[in-house]
Amino acid sequence: MIDFYFDFSSPFGYLASQKIEALAAKHGRTVKWRPMLLGAAFKATGGVPLTQIPLKGEYSKRDFYRSARFHALEYRHPEPFPVSTVAACRAFYSLNEAEAVRFAKAAFKAYFADNLNIGEPDNVLKVAGSLGLTPNIGDQAVKDRTKAEVDAALARGVFGSPYVIVEGEPFWGLDRFDQLDRWLKAPF
Amino acid sequence: MIDFYFDFSSPFGYLASQKIEALAAKHGRTVKWRPMLLGAAFKATGGVPLTQIPLKGEYSKRDFYRSARFHALEYRHPEPFPVSTVAACRAFYSLNEAEAVRFAKAAFKAYFADNLNIGEPDNVLKVAGSLGLTPNIGDQAVKDRTKAEVDAALARGVFGSPYVIVEGEPFWGLDRFDQLDRWLKAPF
Repeated sequence: MIDFYFDFSSPFGYLASQKIEALAAKHGRTVKWRPMLLGAAFKATGGVPLTQIPLKGEYSKRDFYRSARFHALEYRHPEPFPVSTVAACRAFYSLNEAEAVRFAKAAFKAYFADNLNIGEPDNVLKVAGSLGLTPNIGDQAVKDRTKAEVDAALARGVFGSPYVIVEGEPFWGLDRFDQLDRWLKAPF
Repeated sequence: MIDFYFDFSSPFGYLASQKIEALAAKHGRTVKWRPMLLGAAFKATGGVPLTQIPLKGEYSKRDFYRSARFHALEYRHPEPFPVSTVAACRAFYSLNEAEAVRFAKAAFKAYFADNLNIGEPDNVLKVAGSLGLTPNIGDQAVKDRTKAEVDAALARGVFGSPYVIVEGEPFWGLDRFDQLDRWLKAPF
């Protein structure tokens, strides 16, 4: 089992989401998808969204597009960016696991390929609805579950997106998937 | 020609310094070594040393060691870390290019393999002396040259280490060397 943490508003989380299952399958592993909230992590690390940092911001947009081309994946930088992903996160945790993964892929695609603002709860419900799913994002139990999942991620040290943990070994970033690939073959 | 920017106190700058020449040579290119001061870049970006950031700090040390093993390079996290690299930078820019590159390799090795504090000007002179070099780090012209080089790096958007620029295309991080490799073959 591979724990795959991500934020729905994370460009490299989106790109990684299209690579993680094939990588895991190559090594006979399954993936546990675990959306978290980067905003909560940023409170702990003092981080800010990449695109808002002087110098780094300009570089990062170029890097998103080039990294997408490098991995032969589609990418369209969305506006607005970033957005709150609380509603998407709650929708995910209100569904059963198979439904939730289908929803996660559709939500990522809606934001990063179709430029749909998934920060809006109505759009989150629209994405889910297009799959025949009806998440209950207003439910208190769902809100509590989501908060507990995000807190648990922080407690495990998850400070970025994507962030993969394999038997205690953490890998931050799509650009550690080469190390993750070798690790899954044999820890080094 | 490949512009290779780095800070002498940067773990990934050190690891990259051992990969950049073979990578460039593979594509018939030469490398222009360009030390800069991360502290000056951090003033522009609001950055702080990785190891001092909550959660990220713990991860980063583990990542330095694992990345070194992944690339089959030696690494020993130095103490104190990070250190001021003004003296090392001035030593570099006081030498002619061939001498400067020899000095750069020796200074990196002194700090990241032999745990010599290159933040101390005396140790910088010791490293240079072991190569038969006598940089004049107190010279005003050298100080001015160093400042001009660091300012020029910032003006080009260099905010991290390592940072490579190939005909206007920027690559930040050792973990972009895979993209750099493909770019040198053919821009994509």
